[in-house]
Amino acid sequence: MRTELRGLWPPVATPFADNGALNEGALAGHGKALLADGAAGLAILGTTSEGNSLTVAERHRAIDACLEVGIPAARLMPGTGSCALGDAAALTRHAGDVGAAGALLLPPFYYKAVNDDGLFAFVDGVIEACAGKVPPIMLYHIPPFAVVGWSRDLIGRLCDAFPGVIVGVKDSSGDADHTLGLIKAFPQLAVFPGNETYLLRALAAGAAGNISATANINAAGISSLIAHWRDDDAEERQREAIAVRAAASARGMIPSLKAVLAARYGDPAWRNVRPPLLPLDDSAQAALLADPLIVALGGTVTA
Amino acid sequence: MRTELRGLWPPVATPFADNGALNEGALAGHGKALLADGAAGLAILGTTSEGNSLTVAERHRAIDACLEVGIPAARLMPGTGSCALGDAAALTRHAGDVGAAGALLLPPFYYKAVNDDGLFAFVDGVIEACAGKVPPIMLYHIPPFAVVGWSRDLIGRLCDAFPGVIVGVKDSSGDADHTLGLIKAFPQLAVFPGNETYLLRALAAGAAGNISATANINAAGISSLIAHWRDDDAEERQREAIAVRAAASARGMIPSLKAVLAARYGDPAWRNVRPPLLPLDDSAQAALLADPLIVALGGTVTA
Repeated sequence: MRTELRGLWPPVATPFADNGALNEGALAGHGKALLADGAAGLAILGTTSEGNSLTVAERHRAIDACLEVGIPAARLMPGTGSCALGDAAALTRHAGDVGAAGALLLPPFYYKAVNDDGLFAFVDGVIEACAGKVPPIMLYHIPPFAVVGWSRDLIGRLCDAFPGVIVGVKDSSGDADHTLGLIKAFPQLAVFPGNETYLLRALAAGAAGNISATANINAAGISSLIAHWRDDDAEERQREAIAVRAAASARGMIPSLKAVLAARYGDPAWRNVRPPLLPLDDSAQAALLADPLIVALGGTVTA
Repeated sequence: MRTELRGLWPPVATPFADNGALNEGALAGHGKALLADGAAGLAILGTTSEGNSLTVAERHRAIDACLEVGIPAARLMPGTGSCALGDAAALTRHAGDVGAAGALLLPPFYYKAVNDDGLFAFVDGVIEACAGKVPPIMLYHIPPFAVVGWSRDLIGRLCDAFPGVIVGVKDSSGDADHTLGLIKAFPQLAVFPGNETYLLRALAAGAAGNISATANINAAGISSLIAHWRDDDAEERQREAIAVRAAASARGMIPSLKAVLAARYGDPAWRNVRPPLLPLDDSAQAALLADPLIVALGGTVTA
């Protein structure tokens, strides 16, 4: 397993200006803050990032904006999936060209009744289009959103066909048994559970780390849990992380995270999301920000 | 109701060269053949068109390629949806700029648990981005693929907010009762069932026409059914259309349509689909092309 693909890789929320434009500076600043708070790297342009709500051009820019402020490419794992092979290939190739630690690849998610041969052909096409500069590929399994998923059989076929290129799986199935099954079946892969609710069990079984939405506001807590998972207080840290996630997600995860970040950074524009998502209304925001578990996170970002 | 949004608008299959590239010439040629066969217009870049498997740049080019061979913009209804508001807005604006008859707008389909307010904001954003050159918008309801759909309540809200802009619904729910309910609820809208299996009932109830995958190979039959739906032999025409659809879809609709078009146009490259779809294998293709119902369609395209 590549040592760089371990630890906490927050799926970095994406800030938008009040006119809806991507705020590259705030994105890079948030990324730096997460690294300062213990993140091993940054999974930009994923689901929590509203990555599929960005244009293809904006997704290229988001990668470049992080690099331009000095975040090393080896700390970036951009989401590069798209329904269109051509767009997924261009984004994945860009990740390879800049030397990103990896690319998080969704399956194409428009057609639903597709078989593994068709998904294999998609990955094959993406890798071929990278023309020798393919980045390490993390298969992004998130059936609650994509509906289409990477089956265990297909993951095995892809590993056999592209050894050293398929390096891991982000498992956002939400199903602990599924994650533990992947870890057991593919010891050569870096398996990241997509939430932290069963992180201790996953780490004990051999998970590489965690890519969880809540890390946007609780990077210190989750990275500490990962660093100290063998310690006596690990169960207590796990319970705390679960409680924070519950508080953060009760009113809708992405708008809630952004409301917390708006307060933390003193920038109300951080509340902005792109349709079809909507920001929290004022009363929901007030209730969220008054939650003692959320209040307790206030000072955790040091940048 | 705008008179131009009536009749048969085939969701035009998209031809790809053996290297995977969009074959603009073959697309335009197929479009012309469908018009010659009785289609009122062309619903390019939809689901049957593998529209979401094209890059954003290719989708712009597909529109232009049709115009460049002399297909009037008033005969074009491109699919312009995308998960990213910015991409959907750019495509919809392009459709408006060229004077297209309409734009078929999918809801953003990555986030699944979204509410109508968020979808309303998406449409509002698309229309605003068109800056006064918005094309007539057809709401594209296809929950088997998009999962997210346009609820009847939301359609009503959009009609109220954007009268004269929201002009119709393509209902690919596959549910006749749903289509008939839309026709009754929205007499001001052009409602197109997304398949032809209950077309006669829908036309009798006031449907504007039909946008069905099978029209790629049976445009003459379906346009004739629409033209003669009050005739004594309408039920027989309806049964024939249903039988052709069943024959065409038994082995997978899109690859089957393309296999028939490959035979009809004498161009094996028409078989090509983009991943995650796969072409028919040789034995399935042979069985399809030997089906008497398919054989009987052989000469229906005149161009």
